[in-house]
Amino acid sequence: MASDVRSIKGTRDFFPEDMAVRNWIASVWRKVSTRYGFEEFDGPIFESLELYTQKSGEEIVNQLYAFDDKGGRALALRPEMTPTLARMVIARVGTLRKPIKWFSISRCCRYERPQRGRFREFFQWNIDIIGVKEPAADAEVIAAAVDSLREMGLGPDEVVVKIGDRKLLGALLSSLGIEGPRQMRVYSAIDRMTKLPPEKARGPLSQLDLGTDTENRILEVAAAKSLDEVKRFDWKESGSEKALSELETLFAILADCGIAEFCELDLSIVRGLDYYTGIVFEIYDKGRELRAICGGGRYDELISSFGGPPMPAAGFGLGDAVLQELLTERGLLPKFARALDFFAVPITKEEVGTTVKIVQALRRKGRPAEYSLSPGSMRKLMREADGSGAKWAIIVGPDELKEGAVTLRDMETGTQRKVTLQDALAGKFGC
Amino acid sequence: MASDVRSIKGTRDFFPEDMAVRNWIASVWRKVSTRYGFEEFDGPIFESLELYTQKSGEEIVNQLYAFDDKGGRALALRPEMTPTLARMVIARVGTLRKPIKWFSISRCCRYERPQRGRFREFFQWNIDIIGVKEPAADAEVIAAAVDSLREMGLGPDEVVVKIGDRKLLGALLSSLGIEGPRQMRVYSAIDRMTKLPPEKARGPLSQLDLGTDTENRILEVAAAKSLDEVKRFDWKESGSEKALSELETLFAILADCGIAEFCELDLSIVRGLDYYTGIVFEIYDKGRELRAICGGGRYDELISSFGGPPMPAAGFGLGDAVLQELLTERGLLPKFARALDFFAVPITKEEVGTTVKIVQALRRKGRPAEYSLSPGSMRKLMREADGSGAKWAIIVGPDELKEGAVTLRDMETGTQRKVTLQDALAGKFGC
Repeated sequence: MASDVRSIKGTRDFFPEDMAVRNWIASVWRKVSTRYGFEEFDGPIFESLELYTQKSGEEIVNQLYAFDDKGGRALALRPEMTPTLARMVIARVGTLRKPIKWFSISRCCRYERPQRGRFREFFQWNIDIIGVKEPAADAEVIAAAVDSLREMGLGPDEVVVKIGDRKLLGALLSSLGIEGPRQMRVYSAIDRMTKLPPEKARGPLSQLDLGTDTENRILEVAAAKSLDEVKRFDWKESGSEKALSELETLFAILADCGIAEFCELDLSIVRGLDYYTGIVFEIYDKGRELRAICGGGRYDELISSFGGPPMPAAGFGLGDAVLQELLTERGLLPKFARALDFFAVPITKEEVGTTVKIVQALRRKGRPAEYSLSPGSMRKLMREADGSGAKWAIIVGPDELKEGAVTLRDMETGTQRKVTLQDALAGKFGC
Repeated sequence: MASDVRSIKGTRDFFPEDMAVRNWIASVWRKVSTRYGFEEFDGPIFESLELYTQKSGEEIVNQLYAFDDKGGRALALRPEMTPTLARMVIARVGTLRKPIKWFSISRCCRYERPQRGRFREFFQWNIDIIGVKEPAADAEVIAAAVDSLREMGLGPDEVVVKIGDRKLLGALLSSLGIEGPRQMRVYSAIDRMTKLPPEKARGPLSQLDLGTDTENRILEVAAAKSLDEVKRFDWKESGSEKALSELETLFAILADCGIAEFCELDLSIVRGLDYYTGIVFEIYDKGRELRAICGGGRYDELISSFGGPPMPAAGFGLGDAVLQELLTERGLLPKFARALDFFAVPITKEEVGTTVKIVQALRRKGRPAEYSLSPGSMRKLMREADGSGAKWAIIVGPDELKEGAVTLRDMETGTQRKVTLQDALAGKFGC
């Protein structure tokens, strides 16, 4: 094949067997979303470039597929859904029922180095609650994420939700004299830290030249791995009391949701995106062999920063690629068989018309049915019926037709029986 | 809102009520495809630019969203699915079961002037059969298209399938000394002709300077509106006999499929894309108020032209935009209600835990359920329950809990009854 018709690096082709997996994953996402009362939305695959350069943060901006359209508009393929969500909510803020509970299953594109569980095009499940400031909203989105994983067969031995809190960490940083954009740089350093081997982990934070005492204090807090441990710290920082109380409420609701065993506090979780303002979380496989399965958190200032009213918000994005890696590795992907009930075979050209009528009758009844579209020897046609994966073959031959019947063959057992032509033309095969 | 966070001209936002329509249309497409034995596939949203500049023809190339990625690759957002289909089939041609019967529901982008039923981003149902040269394949794809429209409530009084044949027209053109690329220019002129008002219709063809006799002969044939009329012409052209016999077979199978009343011959239908080689068709609303709902045909040389083996193929693309216009106009879009069964209301903070447990029990049973995530007065909470569209409200109050019960309220009738806490915590509400 000519090199110019190859697929593009980092993209995936979904052949029917791959599409079956993608559709199954999306169906679980859709089912769980609906069960939690979320409604589906979607936006365009491209948005104005400005929508992303404003608020998403440097990492995402560096990964944008940006281009101008023929009208000179500066556009970008969407790398995430949250900016689109914010734009749409602002456009109809006055008429939308509150709280807004929306989900989407969106195709997104990022120019990243392709690797295990990472492609340049992927599908991401997004769930968001807009209009609730209480930690009940954070618990609701975390519970939906966990439920989807549980629905796919992943239990607390396989996955863990690590929960951090920028509000608590922010109170600490403020008390250390680190404010505004400098806080963002610390979050970014901590975020990178968690992705590095232990011997290199301190690097990004040290580069900020905060001084050893400050650095140690930050590392001590970021190393905390439970709410109890965190509460034992000597918190004096303004705002820490409220943040701690919200975390306690969050963990209480998560326990009521029956998912306490999936969740743990981890203040080193801060997320890479700029717009998070409070509780943040990431879901990982327990062996930590893969990248994060899911990431989300609270972004109470994003909507107002885009020109909307102040609206608290919380949500997550959960991509298909890492998830599918994990499900494959654990053998949790279902086997997908082709949903074909009948394959009809006209023995000579004369029976094509009757065959078509029988097949159409079955289809009108909602039964998946095919017939051999090209003529051929009986042997070739039966091989085609066999290869089709149909449960039953219908053989329409001249001799049977003379008797006013067709032959129904069970493709698994090989047993055959006659069905009257009248029943066959009505799509009635008793199976 | 700042101008830089507006949506882009020609794109659509799918708010939940819009998404419900889009999902319903896609669900009918998926159902009909499966019934006809087609399997779903998909490819990336962008492909190499070359994939489209090679074979799709000038019109589509002029509408491409083309751009370079950060690695310097020349890419384009897909304007249609057939090139991706050809690429994927060639990549696995040796191992795929034949005939290949695939469908896709694909997001596509074209930089066109937005107008009624036309956006710069749209969703297109594609159905293709690869590996069958007989007209049975053409009939199969046409029948699937018609069935989907019938399934949505559109009958033969509303829509018509107009069927043309480049092979028959090509035989005529060859006999008139018009060969190769000049044939393509005639097809393009005829295609534009059908979209112009009668007084201007002759323009594109006249511009080709074919001479009055040739022009008249082409117009005479293109004006034919039935197979009988076409057969009455004095066909002497080489290849016309085979083409006519295939058209007869096609119409015979369409009659066996029970859709004869939807279909008519119209040799002025030639399609705008370069790669069609034989039978072509377009589906229109009968009043002809809208653009074509669906367009397709046979493209027997596309796969070999991309470097694959010779493989006959036929298929169509059917977009969501014109279809939705027509369904809306005819009042055929179903009413979509939110699928929320229960909305639970904790009266004080003390009942939140129990409320969460009840809601989670319902969700575990697959029932869509919500609860009020923010505290508030009983009045506010009941208004929230009412606005949620839930069928039932569950009221969890301190007095009832003391008695070991909760209150279930039918939101339509307003009638209430008690349910034991034990049943409530097991998600058993008897409704």
